[in-house]
Parts: sequence; C-alpha cells; structure tokens
Amino acid sequence: MNLVQEKLHQAADILREFDVDCWITFVRESQLNGDPVLDFLLASDVTWHTALIVSREGKTWAIVGKYDQASVEDLGAYGEVIGYVESIRPHLQEVIRRLQPRQIAVNYSKDSEICDGITHGMFLTLQEMLEEIGYGDRIISAEAVVSALRQRKTEAELDAIRRAIRATEEIFDEVRQFIRPGRTEKEIAEFMKQRVKERGLELAWDPAYCPGVFTGPAEAEAHYHPTDRQVQPGHVLNMDFGVKVDGYCSDLQRTFYVLEPGEDGPPPEVRRGFETIVAAIRKAKDAIRPGAKGVDIDRIAREHVVTAGYPEYPHALGHQVGRFSHDGTALLGPAWEKYASKPFQPLEAGMVFTIEPRLPVEGRGVVTIEEMVVVTEQGAEWLSTPQEELILIR
Amino acid sequence: MNLVQEKLHQAADILREFDVDCWITFVRESQLNGDPVLDFLLASDVTWHTALIVSREGKTWAIVGKYDQASVEDLGAYGEVIGYVESIRPHLQEVIRRLQPRQIAVNYSKDSEICDGITHGMFLTLQEMLEEIGYGDRIISAEAVVSALRQRKTEAELDAIRRAIRATEEIFDEVRQFIRPGRTEKEIAEFMKQRVKERGLELAWDPAYCPGVFTGPAEAEAHYHPTDRQVQPGHVLNMDFGVKVDGYCSDLQRTFYVLEPGEDGPPPEVRRGFETIVAAIRKAKDAIRPGAKGVDIDRIAREHVVTAGYPEYPHALGHQVGRFSHDGTALLGPAWEKYASKPFQPLEAGMVFTIEPRLPVEGRGVVTIEEMVVVTEQGAEWLSTPQEELILIR
Repeated sequence: MNLVQEKLHQAADILREFDVDCWITFVRESQLNGDPVLDFLLASDVTWHTALIVSREGKTWAIVGKYDQASVEDLGAYGEVIGYVESIRPHLQEVIRRLQPRQIAVNYSKDSEICDGITHGMFLTLQEMLEEIGYGDRIISAEAVVSALRQRKTEAELDAIRRAIRATEEIFDEVRQFIRPGRTEKEIAEFMKQRVKERGLELAWDPAYCPGVFTGPAEAEAHYHPTDRQVQPGHVLNMDFGVKVDGYCSDLQRTFYVLEPGEDGPPPEVRRGFETIVAAIRKAKDAIRPGAKGVDIDRIAREHVVTAGYPEYPHALGHQVGRFSHDGTALLGPAWEKYASKPFQPLEAGMVFTIEPRLPVEGRGVVTIEEMVVVTEQGAEWLSTPQEELILIR
Repeated sequence: MNLVQEKLHQAADILREFDVDCWITFVRESQLNGDPVLDFLLASDVTWHTALIVSREGKTWAIVGKYDQASVEDLGAYGEVIGYVESIRPHLQEVIRRLQPRQIAVNYSKDSEICDGITHGMFLTLQEMLEEIGYGDRIISAEAVVSALRQRKTEAELDAIRRAIRATEEIFDEVRQFIRPGRTEKEIAEFMKQRVKERGLELAWDPAYCPGVFTGPAEAEAHYHPTDRQVQPGHVLNMDFGVKVDGYCSDLQRTFYVLEPGEDGPPPEVRRGFETIVAAIRKAKDAIRPGAKGVDIDRIAREHVVTAGYPEYPHALGHQVGRFSHDGTALLGPAWEKYASKPFQPLEAGMVFTIEPRLPVEGRGVVTIEEMVVVTEQGAEWLSTPQEELILIR
C-alpha cells in the first residue's frame, strides 16, 4: 500500500470515528497555493480546480482537470478518477447528490494552520456550487479529520522521522570538532549545511535559519539568522537544526559550552542552567500520555524553570513534527491567545512532539535543548538521544 | 531601495489609483500556507499571525510575532514594525482604528489564484477582529490591487529579469557548439541543465520540460519532454528555455537549422518560415503600448502568419513573465473561451511579455522564436536580444 492509499483508508476510519459523512479537499494551482494536506492525498501538483472526496463508507473520488487525470490514476488510490475539460461543477454536484451527506467537511480552521488549506476564494466557489444543489448549509470544518490524519503517524512515517533524527545527531557530532574560539556563527552554520548537502538531504526549514547558531550572551533571539559574532571562551552556544528524510523532518537543539583557559568544566551557573533544562524536559516527558493536555505538560516544565529562578521561556514547550518541522495541531503550550485551542487538545498515540524549554544564563548565553518524543499508549518514548551533558568545546 | 521598499511604494500609488484606503495581507506559517503576494512584501517566512498593512497615504505597518520582528526590521521597508508575544489582535485593531479606512482590501478572489492568498480560516479570524471594532463590513477583494502590483515591474524587478535573460542567451550560445547530427533531444537538454547548475541558477519551470528541445518534423508538441529523437541534417530544431535569477524568470525560444552536406545556408522554405516569424514578432512589438489590448496584438501576429500561408499557432501570442514563467493576468491572446477576459485587459507600462508565434515547415520542423519585451509609456522595448538569423549547425 502506498502512503496515499494508507492515508485514504485512515481517513475513512476517522470520518466514522467523528461521525462525518463526507470530506472534500478543494484546490487549484496547488504549486502556487496548495493545501498542506495534499501531501497525503496526491503525489504531484494539480492545475485546474480539483476535488478529492472521501465518504464514511471509504468510497473515494478525485475530480481533476483532464491534464492531471493520468497522474492521479497512476496513484491507484482513488475508487473513481473523473477528468473534466470545461468545468468541475456538474461532476462535483453529481457526486454530492449521490452521497447525500449530512455533513461536508472542508479544510478550514481558525485555530490550526495545518487544517486551514482552502483559500477564501475557493471556499466561496465551493459554497456556491453546493448551494445550487441545496447542500450549502452542510459545510463544516474538517479540522478534527485533518488533524487526526496528520497527527497519527504510521510506522512508515515514524521510520522516516527516526532516520532524519539520526542524521541530525550525526551532524551535531561532526560540528563539535569544528567549533572553536574565533569561529563565527555563519561559519558554523555553513559547515553544517555542507554536511547536509554531502548527505544529499534537505534542511528541515528555511536555510536562512537552519541551522540557527547562537553564541554568547542573549542579544539575538531564536529564529534570527546566524551572524558574524565569534565564539569566545566562556560562551554558551546553542544550535537549532533539522533535516528532512523522505519528506519527514527532525528538529533538535543542542547546547555547547566553550571552556575558558584553565577550565575543565562549565562554571556553576552554566551547569545549573543546563541541569534545570534537562530536568524540565524529563519531567515533561514523564507526564506525557494519551488523553493528557499540552497545557498541563507545558506547565510542568515552565514551573520547573521558573521555580529554579529563571524567566519563563517566551514560547510553547513543544510542537509536533512531521512533514513540516512545525506540524499538527495539539501543542505543548501555555494558554495564550495566539495558541487558541491547541494546548487543550488531548494528546493521542502516534503524535510526535518536540520538548524545548530554554533559559538565559547571565553573561554567558542561552541554554536550550530540544528533544523529540513519540506518544505511545504507555507514555512518551524518546525518538532522539537525549542530551544529558553539556558539549564542551576547548 | 530594495524590492520590498519599491513594492510598498508602488502599492500606495495603486491604492490611490483604485481609491482604496487600506490593504491588509494576513498570513501565518507562511512556509506552510503562504500567500503568492508575500514574495513582494517580505524577504523570509513568518510563523505567527502576521499583518502587513499599507494605507493610501503610503504608511506601512508590519505586525509580526516577536521572533520574526528582527528580520522584518532588517528589511527597512515598513514604517512601523510591531512585534507581539501573546496576540496580534489589539495591535491590528489599534492600527485600523487609527486609519479609519472606508475599505479594507484583503487577498481573496474566485477568478484569480494569484490574488487568492488568504485562507478561509484566516479570513474568518480577520473578519472577527474587524467586526469587534465595527469594521467587519468594510472588507473588499484586493484582486485589482494585487494584480496591478504583480504586473507593473519596478526597476529592481526588471534588472533581475534582464540578468535571467542574459544567462539564458549565454547558454543558448554555448549549446550551439554541442548540437550536431546524432545528438538526442535528451542529451541537449542535459547539457543545458548542466550549464544552469554550474552557474548556480535554477530552471524557470518544471525540469521535465525546461529546456524543451524539439528537433525535426512536428510530431512532438510544446510542453512535451525531450525524447531520444536524434538531430539530423535538414532538421529545424527549436528550444524553449528559461532560468530564474533572484526569484525572476526568463522564457525564451530559439530556432536552429542543421545544414545538410554541401549546404551553406537554409533551404528557401525554412528561410521563408523563419522570416515570417521574425516579421510577425516585430509587427506585434511595434503595436504594443499602454492601453492597447492583448487581443489586438495577438491578431496582428496571427494574421501575418496566416496571410503568409501558414496555419495559425494554437496558443496565445504571449504571456507575462515575473516570479513565475507564466505570470500576471493580461495576456496577448485570441478571444478564445479558455482565456476568459485576459486578452481584453488593457496593457500597462511595466508589464513584461513574451512574444512567441510559431509555424511548421513541412518535413523540416517547427520554427518558433520567443522574445521578451517590457511595456513602456513609449511602447515595447526589447528585453531579450532578438533572434534575427537562423542559428546554423554544421
């Protein structure tokens, strides 16, 4: 079974679970303005208006422009592939009339960008086509359907993520020999990019910020690009880095300490910051289980950091990872408005999360570790090899 | 002035021209679900809810997540960059309250995918934020604004296009030494791709069709990929090829003739076909001016070709070029249904068009040249160096 076939079967199961009759993904010019869920439903881009329909009984239709018909048929995933020349309208209306769905789930969501694939213009077009046949008022958000489909990783998906993590850890190992006083953040980033290139892999996010390299006292912030700032003895240096393997991402952070002349280990304040982060991650991981809520997991780590006397990290504790380095809906995050309902969605087996608290060590730099775990029925399992010691640079 | 600065100035001019008080581009996680217009408004991706606002007076605001603030500030393009942590809502509402706009143009469109950048979920979010302060009913489609912004090229954009054209012409020069009887279309395409790679450039469209290489009598069609067909003496060979420089495309076609043993030049029927195409392009170019309609420009070239006794070309005479090799709305095309209103939109200064008539020469191959021009107040100016002689292969 290929990925699309796997995911279409999973989609029908999910429609029954949520008691939804029908799910439509509606796109055009997908290279220009795609829907994030298309990666699971097609193997190539489409040009004209395209409707991908799944019913709760597991029936599937792809209504596509004539020139896209052959490549969609080649997938062997859709029960019926309908190619049109003049207009998608009569074909779409015919399928819906046959299905008589009580609900038509469509990919829009205020809370979750990953489930918000339909553009407003396309929504208006679909609504008009459905109104003409009396189904305009049956549109509902497909957020729950798309979230579940995206979040519940299959074995094949987990395997790709594990391979991405392995490559990332190996490159972190290689770069420790390269880092030394005088090297700039840019040079270190360039070294890592070169390793990624040699392995024939892609970076997991925007090359301007992947890897992120931050050395010394906290002036620059995360998501800001590597600079000409030089590594200096006494600096805490951290990196945020990930690669993509077979379409799936890793996203890890590691913290390094640059020894001063005569030092054998980090000074007490750096060691204490590091141990606080390691403990916060472990506490959070131990609390993860299906049914738990991200807001509670975030609170455990956040309180640990604050109780130790550090400022709280100005972001969520962790996000999901999949085809994007930031993926999925459920979030290990605080109850801030911009996170909407994400921190309140119950965790499920098959979800992959980062855990990434951070704290500043005055005059030294930022200590931050990002690990990756998968939620199982028994709790969280490490996907990454957790960092338990500061990486010392001489 | 960088590209974003140029485009923001242009946007304010366009708002005044169309009598629109305010334009908002509203996105989140732009890597995942971007808006095609973002290329003109930002230099990198944004993560949290982001509002890019332009007023008719030329005031500009970027309201962005805290971690995106530094890179947006670095652009030096927005009058005010507001970074937030918890919610964009109060900041967005504050700017709108200050502006008191009669219209708020938002990027959605049923007709044009290039202007349909906002997702439905983001539209609902924006609408709700505006309703709370009594501005919910002032939303209008930004289609006219976005179209104009995309089509009217600034100096920086024209410069990038010129450099893409220069690289394309140089590679056409290099390949003429490589073409000889016995070479296949695939080998020639591979040679050109290698040259693009060596220059560190990207192809302007799908590598399966860029370059297009077509040798000999017309069996293969445009947009069909290079085959194992071999170049033979007496063949007319043509190529369709473009590269991307700093995000902007070229799109050119050139025609070659492969001399037979003993020949010093092309036979009369090939020469006549070639001269017909050169003249059709020149006539069309001479007629282009602001306010003219594409349908009339197309007719001039089409009639020239048909009057000379050749079949009419089965496509439009020319399309716009920009960040995509096929870009913009207004088209130099016939009044065929599938082109809808595009051939009837008046031409404007700053638009960049291809001119690309074609004709078959029986038993020899297809003669086709594609040049690029920019519309100025005085008429069309060449961007490419027009092909005036058949390129002879020995």
